[in-house]
Amino acid sequence: MTGASFDRVEELFADLFPLTRSLTGNGVRQTLDRLSDVTPLNVRTVPSGTPVYDWEVPPEWNIRDAYVTDSSGKRVVDFADSNLHVVNYSVPVDVELSFDELSEHLHTLPGMPDAIPYRTTYYERDWGFCIRHDTLEAMDEDETYEVYIDSDLDPEGELTYADAKIEGESEREYIISTYCCHPSLANDNLSGLILATLLFELLRQGSTHHSYRLIVVPETIGAISYLHEHENAMKTVDGGYVVTTVAGRGTFDYKESFEGDHPVDMAARWALAGDEYDEHEFAPTGSDERQYGTPGFRIPTGTIAKDKYYEYDAYHTSKDDLSFVSSEALLKTFDRYARAINLLETDRVYERVDPHCEFKLDRHDLHPTTGGQKKQPGHLKGEDHESFEYRLDDGEAASGDVFDAINWLMFGCDGETTLFQLANRSGMNPRTLHRAACELVDAGLLEESA
Amino acid sequence: MTGASFDRVEELFADLFPLTRSLTGNGVRQTLDRLSDVTPLNVRTVPSGTPVYDWEVPPEWNIRDAYVTDSSGKRVVDFADSNLHVVNYSVPVDVELSFDELSEHLHTLPGMPDAIPYRTTYYERDWGFCIRHDTLEAMDEDETYEVYIDSDLDPEGELTYADAKIEGESEREYIISTYCCHPSLANDNLSGLILATLLFELLRQGSTHHSYRLIVVPETIGAISYLHEHENAMKTVDGGYVVTTVAGRGTFDYKESFEGDHPVDMAARWALAGDEYDEHEFAPTGSDERQYGTPGFRIPTGTIAKDKYYEYDAYHTSKDDLSFVSSEALLKTFDRYARAINLLETDRVYERVDPHCEFKLDRHDLHPTTGGQKKQPGHLKGEDHESFEYRLDDGEAASGDVFDAINWLMFGCDGETTLFQLANRSGMNPRTLHRAACELVDAGLLEESA
Amino acid sequence: MTGASFDRVEELFADLFPLTRSLTGNGVRQTLDRLSDVTPLNVRTVPSGTPVYDWEVPPEWNIRDAYVTDSSGKRVVDFADSNLHVVNYSVPVDVELSFDELSEHLHTLPGMPDAIPYRTTYYERDWGFCIRHDTLEAMDEDETYEVYIDSDLDPEGELTYADAKIEGESEREYIISTYCCHPSLANDNLSGLILATLLFELLRQGSTHHSYRLIVVPETIGAISYLHEHENAMKTVDGGYVVTTVAGRGTFDYKESFEGDHPVDMAARWALAGDEYDEHEFAPTGSDERQYGTPGFRIPTGTIAKDKYYEYDAYHTSKDDLSFVSSEALLKTFDRYARAINLLETDRVYERVDPHCEFKLDRHDLHPTTGGQKKQPGHLKGEDHESFEYRLDDGEAASGDVFDAINWLMFGCDGETTLFQLANRSGMNPRTLHRAACELVDAGLLEESA
Repeated sequence: MTGASFDRVEELFADLFPLTRSLTGNGVRQTLDRLSDVTPLNVRTVPSGTPVYDWEVPPEWNIRDAYVTDSSGKRVVDFADSNLHVVNYSVPVDVELSFDELSEHLHTLPGMPDAIPYRTTYYERDWGFCIRHDTLEAMDEDETYEVYIDSDLDPEGELTYADAKIEGESEREYIISTYCCHPSLANDNLSGLILATLLFELLRQGSTHHSYRLIVVPETIGAISYLHEHENAMKTVDGGYVVTTVAGRGTFDYKESFEGDHPVDMAARWALAGDEYDEHEFAPTGSDERQYGTPGFRIPTGTIAKDKYYEYDAYHTSKDDLSFVSSEALLKTFDRYARAINLLETDRVYERVDPHCEFKLDRHDLHPTTGGQKKQPGHLKGEDHESFEYRLDDGEAASGDVFDAINWLMFGCDGETTLFQLANRSGMNPRTLHRAACELVDAGLLEESA
Repeated sequence: MTGASFDRVEELFADLFPLTRSLTGNGVRQTLDRLSDVTPLNVRTVPSGTPVYDWEVPPEWNIRDAYVTDSSGKRVVDFADSNLHVVNYSVPVDVELSFDELSEHLHTLPGMPDAIPYRTTYYERDWGFCIRHDTLEAMDEDETYEVYIDSDLDPEGELTYADAKIEGESEREYIISTYCCHPSLANDNLSGLILATLLFELLRQGSTHHSYRLIVVPETIGAISYLHEHENAMKTVDGGYVVTTVAGRGTFDYKESFEGDHPVDMAARWALAGDEYDEHEFAPTGSDERQYGTPGFRIPTGTIAKDKYYEYDAYHTSKDDLSFVSSEALLKTFDRYARAINLLETDRVYERVDPHCEFKLDRHDLHPTTGGQKKQPGHLKGEDHESFEYRLDDGEAASGDVFDAINWLMFGCDGETTLFQLANRSGMNPRTLHRAACELVDAGLLEESA
Repeated sequence: MTGASFDRVEELFADLFPLTRSLTGNGVRQTLDRLSDVTPLNVRTVPSGTPVYDWEVPPEWNIRDAYVTDSSGKRVVDFADSNLHVVNYSVPVDVELSFDELSEHLHTLPGMPDAIPYRTTYYERDWGFCIRHDTLEAMDEDETYEVYIDSDLDPEGELTYADAKIEGESEREYIISTYCCHPSLANDNLSGLILATLLFELLRQGSTHHSYRLIVVPETIGAISYLHEHENAMKTVDGGYVVTTVAGRGTFDYKESFEGDHPVDMAARWALAGDEYDEHEFAPTGSDERQYGTPGFRIPTGTIAKDKYYEYDAYHTSKDDLSFVSSEALLKTFDRYARAINLLETDRVYERVDPHCEFKLDRHDLHPTTGGQKKQPGHLKGEDHESFEYRLDDGEAASGDVFDAINWLMFGCDGETTLFQLANRSGMNPRTLHRAACELVDAGLLEESA
């Protein structure tokens, strides 16, 4: 199977959902391995204990089993039922405790009593269980409980991540970043892993104008480690997207970059132009844009989401499961990301070979010849074999617009104005302008500026 | 007769309307000759076949007669009735045709059946007749027609245009451009020819601060030829107006320049401040701003119109005749252009001789001497003998504003801020600011910056 | 007594109201002497006749007595009743006049018949009396009046003013300017004299980050003289406030600086954020911003007022007396100025010591350690012993905001962005950002940029 099909998304959801992901450990390795089936990934490691800026790569955590049994031997809580039951990064435990002692290590959601919360203790040596509030209420306060967590924190371990690169012809590079540290949570962020990988597969099907880098890392510490390990390369990145929570059944969202009006923002907004969506101003909370955007890197990254993190009740609970997400929804968001990337591909600068006066369009077979009546557009023939083109036959570059596009290009192509600027000025879609520009390049009238 | 009077406009309309103008030929020559009576013009030529950028100057077209007769000898269509009847630049024809054969060469307006459309075939060797749709419907489909066009296309001919220049003392130059290629069409653009020529006559009555260039050319190819023949001079032009469709009985229009907020735009908006008018964003369609604005020249040109081209039903039909326009309307638009030019004249930069603190205005006889009460403005004495001043006695520079103007000038005249910028900041009319500035110059307190 | 207390303001109003202030003379000296009790002032002089830019320091004016008596010896007008009765800077007079002759020297307010107007004749040798219109109406037109003014205009005299300076550690200097030339008028501008002096006393109680200069001068000629005498020093001043009309019982006002969005404007608006107030665009009328803002100095100065000059009926009349103002109102405006100065103190530029990625806040004891749940702010410990801090315990830097502030600082502290810019971007109060910045500086994560 190749391509972003419904069946393939379903299969990836099914295969990947059960894995116990964390910042480190086997769940991450298995996940990256399965994603490598979709598109080849470079799987890389950073040793535990490595200093990365203000942080340190934590010990590698693996967990095999965990439960709480009452005195009758009945498992009150069992890791085998849900990997959310154990606080992520819990130290190993094998102890008998009273209810009161145990309850200090129990996390519940009183307001959502049938949901298991998702909790972590990455940087504080601790342990705990996350359980339904209903379960807590049913527990016997006079019982003694056996508590068992079969985990280990290996200071000689490693943090595992993956990346991939497509080399384009321009000087620009964009990142597509997503995070792989959340265990069995479907929208946040298994959906992002699937979408980002499929998107990269699509980009690899032809040549691209810009360069692209796929980054699959555990959130925060993984992004920090990535930036640390690839500091020089990352300092020249032009922008990108942090792909997260993309398969909800609700509304589209767009969280803008720190810049707010960067080409990545404009491309996302054009890609979403036909949708209702919630626009979120930049805030220094969220996902790995918090690392990419810091002053040392200043990589503008936006996020197109569908049921964005923070915005849905099931967020960071066991309710964010396979029934919460929809493969159809994921494919819709995939479409918007593909359009956004296609738009970034078209953000070129062109210069007229001779900048004086209008072209005589009929001479170049671009214009009808009888004057005095309303102009009819020529047939659009321009193609660009050196850039990614995503579903351009969908009416965006309707022939009715092409004559307008050529007129704007005759005015705007001064070797400085970008097609995005010209699109903002003219109200035209940059893909239409780009198609017309290709036609004028073919006619020898425009050149792409370096 | 001199000056922009009702009678003079009427006479010019009457004399010029019947002439068969085109891109080239005797109609253009006769038109430029008659306009030279209003104000002296340099009539110049470019030989047919001259390459001008992406274009080539076409053969010279002249037409003497044309008609279609039916088998009874009755003239169904006759050029003598209207020069719109023949597609402009039609090749000579002398042939008998069936109705079906002929009908491929007939142009009508089914939605306006009693109007003759205006059509051209400048760059495709073809011929045709433009007729009322009513006429077409009355024609006998079984008839055989004699078709006769007595025209010629002379490859040894020439394109005729005219210009004129007023040298001012500043470094700025503005163009007033209009087009002379439309045959018997009154608003588009005989009205523009009359207004532009009268305006230049007015500017020549005294000295001007800036330089001005009148350009009278056939549309598109004429502007392109002009830019080609005067390339270096035109590259330093600061802005201007394309004068077209200025005598309708409807609303004023303003089409902004490519820049949109250039001094030519600001001046036009101030000139129209007391009027209701439709503001049109720049679009790369329209008239010769399409040539002036291209990257090689980037001359910002706006258009003040009254019943703007594209916006009225009679556009490019025989309905755009002398009954459509009004000489009173033309004189109103003339007034707005004259104000706009006067405003451009006042867009100076001044610098205080000593930039520290307020002036002691009473010492310079600019201020009453009893303090503590509301300030009364001094009498306005400032005059500027080196600039064009148009009807300044109309209340714009009311004495009540002059004290305010002096206060703003004391603050703003820093050798960098233009009077237009200060006008935008203060909400005052630049003509008032300029009058007050002249007074302060007379008092030795301000100097005009180079 | 020290500090801005109700009793102290009452006492200052009572002591200073009766003094006969003018551009020059003993009333000014007595006023500056009494204000020196509040905070030490450098009292300085400029000799009469000194040329100061376009102006000249006037002769020193002093007045001892003045009256108009009728033939029965009854004093119709008596300077002893109100120092507003004599036109300020009246020459000495001792003459008998008919009513008609006298009436040319009488000023009244027909629309406010029981109020004495305030008038001056600083630069025209003249004399006059300001009287209630009721008084004028009661005068006998057939009477002969004895007119007596015991004043003198000493060309060997001097103009007296005062200043004071606080040296801060930054390169920025702000002025607090007020004027001392109005006689017995309470809001305009005895209130400003009291507020400005108390504010400077407050600033002197600790160290400040920026430098501050208090300027107490007669309006216009005093500010001009000050700028002339301290030209070089004043050319490097960064901004400030002109303190006037600050004790009315009505609404707050803010008149913006010439720049309009300068830090002094932003600070004033944040200081008034909790109040209803009238915003006044800059206009080149008003008080000494008319001198400070001229091109030679361009010192942006705003004015926070309470019942701003021009805006209340009692302005420049005897109705602007101690019953018009309120010491409580003055203390409210004092509070807003103190906040504004405190805000200016926080307008720093910080740079991250290492600009890459987020800080690990828990490692610096700035963050809780259990992940996955909503972040709780740390306790705010940051203090800045090198800047003026005014009432920071009032909830502005609520602990709930501090985590947000730290997040924004991690993003924004790039060595170029000011805290004011970051405040505008984030919607946070600069004082909260500054407190959080101090905490990050204490943790060794931020440095203040030079």
